[in-house]
Amino acid sequence: MRIDEVHITPVAFRDPPLLNAVGVHEPFALRSVVEVVAEDGTYGLGESYGDARHLARLRVAAEALRGVDVWHVHELARRVRGGLDDGVGGHGMGGMVTGSSGADRVLSPFEVACLDIQGKLVGRPVSDLLGGAVRDRVEYSAYLFYKWAGHPGGEPDGWGEALGPDELVAQARRMVGEFGFRAIKLKGGVMPPEEEVAAVRALAGEFPGVPLRLDPNAAWGVGTAVRVAGELAGVLEYLEDPTSGVAGMARVAREAPMPLATNMCVVAFDQLRPAVEVDAVQVILSDHHFWGGLGRSRVLAGVCEAFGLSLSMHSNSHLGVSLAAMTHLASATPNLSYACDTHWPWKAVEDDVVVPGVLRFEGGAVPVPTGPGLGVELDRDALARLHERYVACGLRERDDTGYYRRVCDAGFDPVPPRW
Amino acid sequence: MRIDEVHITPVAFRDPPLLNAVGVHEPFALRSVVEVVAEDGTYGLGESYGDARHLARLRVAAEALRGVDVWHVHELARRVRGGLDDGVGGHGMGGMVTGSSGADRVLSPFEVACLDIQGKLVGRPVSDLLGGAVRDRVEYSAYLFYKWAGHPGGEPDGWGEALGPDELVAQARRMVGEFGFRAIKLKGGVMPPEEEVAAVRALAGEFPGVPLRLDPNAAWGVGTAVRVAGELAGVLEYLEDPTSGVAGMARVAREAPMPLATNMCVVAFDQLRPAVEVDAVQVILSDHHFWGGLGRSRVLAGVCEAFGLSLSMHSNSHLGVSLAAMTHLASATPNLSYACDTHWPWKAVEDDVVVPGVLRFEGGAVPVPTGPGLGVELDRDALARLHERYVACGLRERDDTGYYRRVCDAGFDPVPPRW
Ligand SMILES: [Mg+2]
Ligand SMILES: [Mg+2]
Repeated sequence: MRIDEVHITPVAFRDPPLLNAVGVHEPFALRSVVEVVAEDGTYGLGESYGDARHLARLRVAAEALRGVDVWHVHELARRVRGGLDDGVGGHGMGGMVTGSSGADRVLSPFEVACLDIQGKLVGRPVSDLLGGAVRDRVEYSAYLFYKWAGHPGGEPDGWGEALGPDELVAQARRMVGEFGFRAIKLKGGVMPPEEEVAAVRALAGEFPGVPLRLDPNAAWGVGTAVRVAGELAGVLEYLEDPTSGVAGMARVAREAPMPLATNMCVVAFDQLRPAVEVDAVQVILSDHHFWGGLGRSRVLAGVCEAFGLSLSMHSNSHLGVSLAAMTHLASATPNLSYACDTHWPWKAVEDDVVVPGVLRFEGGAVPVPTGPGLGVELDRDALARLHERYVACGLRERDDTGYYRRVCDAGFDPVPPRW
Repeated sequence: MRIDEVHITPVAFRDPPLLNAVGVHEPFALRSVVEVVAEDGTYGLGESYGDARHLARLRVAAEALRGVDVWHVHELARRVRGGLDDGVGGHGMGGMVTGSSGADRVLSPFEVACLDIQGKLVGRPVSDLLGGAVRDRVEYSAYLFYKWAGHPGGEPDGWGEALGPDELVAQARRMVGEFGFRAIKLKGGVMPPEEEVAAVRALAGEFPGVPLRLDPNAAWGVGTAVRVAGELAGVLEYLEDPTSGVAGMARVAREAPMPLATNMCVVAFDQLRPAVEVDAVQVILSDHHFWGGLGRSRVLAGVCEAFGLSLSMHSNSHLGVSLAAMTHLASATPNLSYACDTHWPWKAVEDDVVVPGVLRFEGGAVPVPTGPGLGVELDRDALARLHERYVACGLRERDDTGYYRRVCDAGFDPVPPRW
């Protein structure tokens, strides 16, 4: 069953002013929606970053993939590699994840779309193509952010300002109330570490027994990281990327009382061995968008199991195609032992490209879609609407740092360590 | 599509007196043929070891697997683990591979059978379920053995005696002539190292440019291994298990001019990290029979790619079901860069359980079956015949050492290092 057509549609959806170590989210998040059409008309969906350079790479790959059998994922990968430029830049992750493999980033949405087609052809959910769901619902975590009330010059977004512990607790209360999450993550690296420690402590007081995580995106030096880790002993289930680089992480890991997690210093297969050799990280946050799709994420899970690493899941701002893919993958990954990250609550319900109804949160978890393939269908009107918004919004690269400089602090310098 | 019935049939087929580090092959090799029948009557095939303890474990697992969906491989694995005893013994590998995972050994034939069913249900070869064949034929190597002319008290087997370089060269000439192999492996650990070095040199002289391997199955001490490795610099593409254990292999690896390969000191996922940490081995010989099936072998291939290890494939005496599975797996493993091992030439053509015609050697390679599933069908008359032979032959465990002691040298002690 060969690939007949590939359509790549850049889209934009509204995004609140969420603060992080490198700046602040712009008013629109960019994504690409990939539609692969097989020769019998069956279509499959993938979703990826929307940055211009990434889009250009996707388009080069799409040309090369025509005629490939949808079951031949190794051949997809070979053709993607064959057409790839240097793979640098256009990561779509605001400068926070820069070391991932260009080939794996480009392969991912096509592989997911081909699995979607395979599932539709054989009448089985994608989870079955990954060894079968070992859980029928996938737990996600509440993802808290320091944030402004609204984008400068724009309307407040309804979530309100959150710049201190009390506001973050209120944000958590609302998010947990609406979605039922049973784990909480705070995006840090925004305020001085002591303020973030206070915020985590306030969350621990408000949500006793709920697993907590803090992710400063490598904004801290080794000394600061070690100190904060000590202060949060017994409070965090893991500390995510407290400092930059494998060597620094290894130094922190030797002192920290909790496991260290990463989606920054180990983001590609060739970075696993150096990290393992110095025991730099204990938890890998997988992400099929930059690990090469669902099949290669399964390999990553196998590596983690073999090498005694724990496994969690990373998220960027995303739409329903990605949520479906993440949920299938997580459901079929026995050693995924943590609630997955998702930015889902920050997206307006009506901003999506899939037909509503299949994806929903119940008790902090998404029931695994049971229809053939990913189990979600493309809403072509919605796709057109979000593409119009992409055209109109003018954004072509995610640039949290540039935006922060423009609207807040022209001298802002996110080069770590900030503390 | 649920599993309705599972049939496990022990079989025996004639085996020549092939010598190795722990003794000599008995007159019959034992295997188990696993047939999984789905609720719609579709059957799938697997093949595994035939030792009594392993058979008992397979039977326990078979009971537990009834009712599981053939797509739910993770659930298969969970149920196998749940019913497993201590997993020790009954390895079916003559005492040479003892550290593999009992759960993975038991899972393997059921997983292969379920993939066979999946492929039949969707009308695709198993290779497609593994990401698609990247080569349409899989290269195997000529597998030379020191051997007697026949079993004591029995007829000569037609291959003749091979106890020195000239006879091994003649054996290689015949095997390469009949099968077209383009790589040659000598099973060593039988004669004093200098004799085996001479044999390898004779093969190098007779087959210039043909990749050569020597596998003494850990019969040597570190000093001997280092010396032999030095003597065979530029002659071997890899040296397989020259000594026992990760620590010893690491010491040899630091001195050896060629890569070291193993199917003895890294035979399970939890043995990868210790080996990687000391750089003990450079080539892993995968084997889906003890690495948990084809899906988990794909994970092993991913580990090898990520950690900079090369990948080859190990074989025990086997029938057509295994040859089909090995060929599908190898075809869909891009980083398998060596010709695979196989004992195939040592098996009588008529001793098999699959309908003849699909599996054949052309230029040292097996064309990847293209029919649905494994692409081979069960010959039930042949299965009954080989089962009768199992019943009649009286062997219930592979015991190369015991046989050697009975027929040749009562004081034989294979505990390494012998040299
Ligand atoms: Mg992170
Ligand atoms: Mg070996």
